[in-house]
Amino acid sequence: MEETFKPIAPPEKRVELFAIGNELLVGQVLDTNTHWLIRSFTALGAHVRRAHIVRDEYDEIADSLSSAMRRAPRLMVTTGGLGPTDDDLTLRAVARLLGLPLIEHPLALEMVRRRYEYLASVRPNFSAELNEARRKMALFPQGAHPLANPSGAAPGMALDLNSQTTLVCLPGVPSEMKDIFNTSLQPILQRTIGAGGYVEHTIVLDRGDESRIAAALHKIQAAHPTVYVKSRGQTFEDGLHLTVVLSHAGSDVQFIRQELSQTEQDAIQALSELGYRVLRVIEN
Amino acid sequence: MEETFKPIAPPEKRVELFAIGNELLVGQVLDTNTHWLIRSFTALGAHVRRAHIVRDEYDEIADSLSSAMRRAPRLMVTTGGLGPTDDDLTLRAVARLLGLPLIEHPLALEMVRRRYEYLASVRPNFSAELNEARRKMALFPQGAHPLANPSGAAPGMALDLNSQTTLVCLPGVPSEMKDIFNTSLQPILQRTIGAGGYVEHTIVLDRGDESRIAAALHKIQAAHPTVYVKSRGQTFEDGLHLTVVLSHAGSDVQFIRQELSQTEQDAIQALSELGYRVLRVIEN
Repeated sequence: MEETFKPIAPPEKRVELFAIGNELLVGQVLDTNTHWLIRSFTALGAHVRRAHIVRDEYDEIADSLSSAMRRAPRLMVTTGGLGPTDDDLTLRAVARLLGLPLIEHPLALEMVRRRYEYLASVRPNFSAELNEARRKMALFPQGAHPLANPSGAAPGMALDLNSQTTLVCLPGVPSEMKDIFNTSLQPILQRTIGAGGYVEHTIVLDRGDESRIAAALHKIQAAHPTVYVKSRGQTFEDGLHLTVVLSHAGSDVQFIRQELSQTEQDAIQALSELGYRVLRVIEN
Repeated sequence: MEETFKPIAPPEKRVELFAIGNELLVGQVLDTNTHWLIRSFTALGAHVRRAHIVRDEYDEIADSLSSAMRRAPRLMVTTGGLGPTDDDLTLRAVARLLGLPLIEHPLALEMVRRRYEYLASVRPNFSAELNEARRKMALFPQGAHPLANPSGAAPGMALDLNSQTTLVCLPGVPSEMKDIFNTSLQPILQRTIGAGGYVEHTIVLDRGDESRIAAALHKIQAAHPTVYVKSRGQTFEDGLHLTVVLSHAGSDVQFIRQELSQTEQDAIQALSELGYRVLRVIEN
């Protein structure tokens, strides 16, 4: 039991996530965005490297983002801090970190203007006037591109930091974050992450002591270094079972499926030799 | 709208959190530990500074922890990676980061032994033998103290990194994490975080445009820099409302209550002058 073997992730597929907002770090709001993004990026074959929750402070945001830039992921994605109020300062922190001027982006301003015109058309006594707080949502670091927000006022933002890393900033409201991800972010996802997939096989065992299978799993992981091998207890309709979860994300889905099938065969054989009975294998 | 004002947190109350596990970063498991710990630490008057999700890799764990050490929080708390299998490597990563030898801790080994003897006494055909994987859970960095785990095999760990910062490592299974927090971790919480509290007042408004109150909130925040002032939409039984949440965590609960009451009065006055009607104030 010396080193563990880790799944190999091509660097161009790495993603790092940042949920920004004091309300998350005092527990007023549960951050559901990170888990949704983890599942969405994994399903695209990407490798989510780390995730962070960060306070609404210039230095905190800048320090977290600049540390991640040194790790050179293909995508850095923030959620939160794009709104009209004063503590929404993600884009200002990005501009300051990169030494870029903040400019009123004409397309972003047009998106904000259209949103409030729409709201004024459907709500009584609602003004479409672009006050300072609303205009703030169109203040972008120079060179950044707005991402249309189908269900809210604040546009998202995409900015190539260098040839390796693209920064994407999404709103913190989950419905807006998801809608941008599923629409205006798609071209950027295709350009940076590309096609790919994720496959997971769960071997369900009849007995539950994790410590007895550690050595066997170590050998299986060593023989299949690109597959992620993990044991854990899971509750099903027929009760708590020990499971071995084999999973693999990547761009070549055919390769992934072959690797997982081979790993599953080897794992079932090794577990059977230890006297475990496989109840079923769940594939998805 | 230049700088935002941030709540003042005494450095001795700062906490940084680390959820460790690849299963969290591929989305197989939703990390609920971080939110529970954020709420628990905030309720004690502590200031959760940042939170991270990190892969089960030596370099990832070591890099995340050493970055946080430079920020010198009073507590660093990890969850996950204490179990018997090979990818549970939190304590080995800590030992390597700090240059400490890993030793079999007699008290930790006794805790593990008792757990398996108990399990063998209640489960048919269950061996209490301390195999290598089980003994691994008692391998602690030199100088660390085990924390009794009332509901699982893996003891928690506490280690003073220096005079400023204590590192606490808890299991990733939520029930075990919570049970240790509520029992064997308590003396360490009292020594490091001490007594304190958290108070939150939510002002519920009759109308919903966040952009119109930005300037007023800015002034209120500036006048009460220790209070955290945040507007957001919240759904109640009578529908979606714009709310202004005033909150404060700290060691002096009487001071906190006074500050919040004064801030609430000022906020209600400013919002009334803008034409907003306060539906109710929720205190907790």
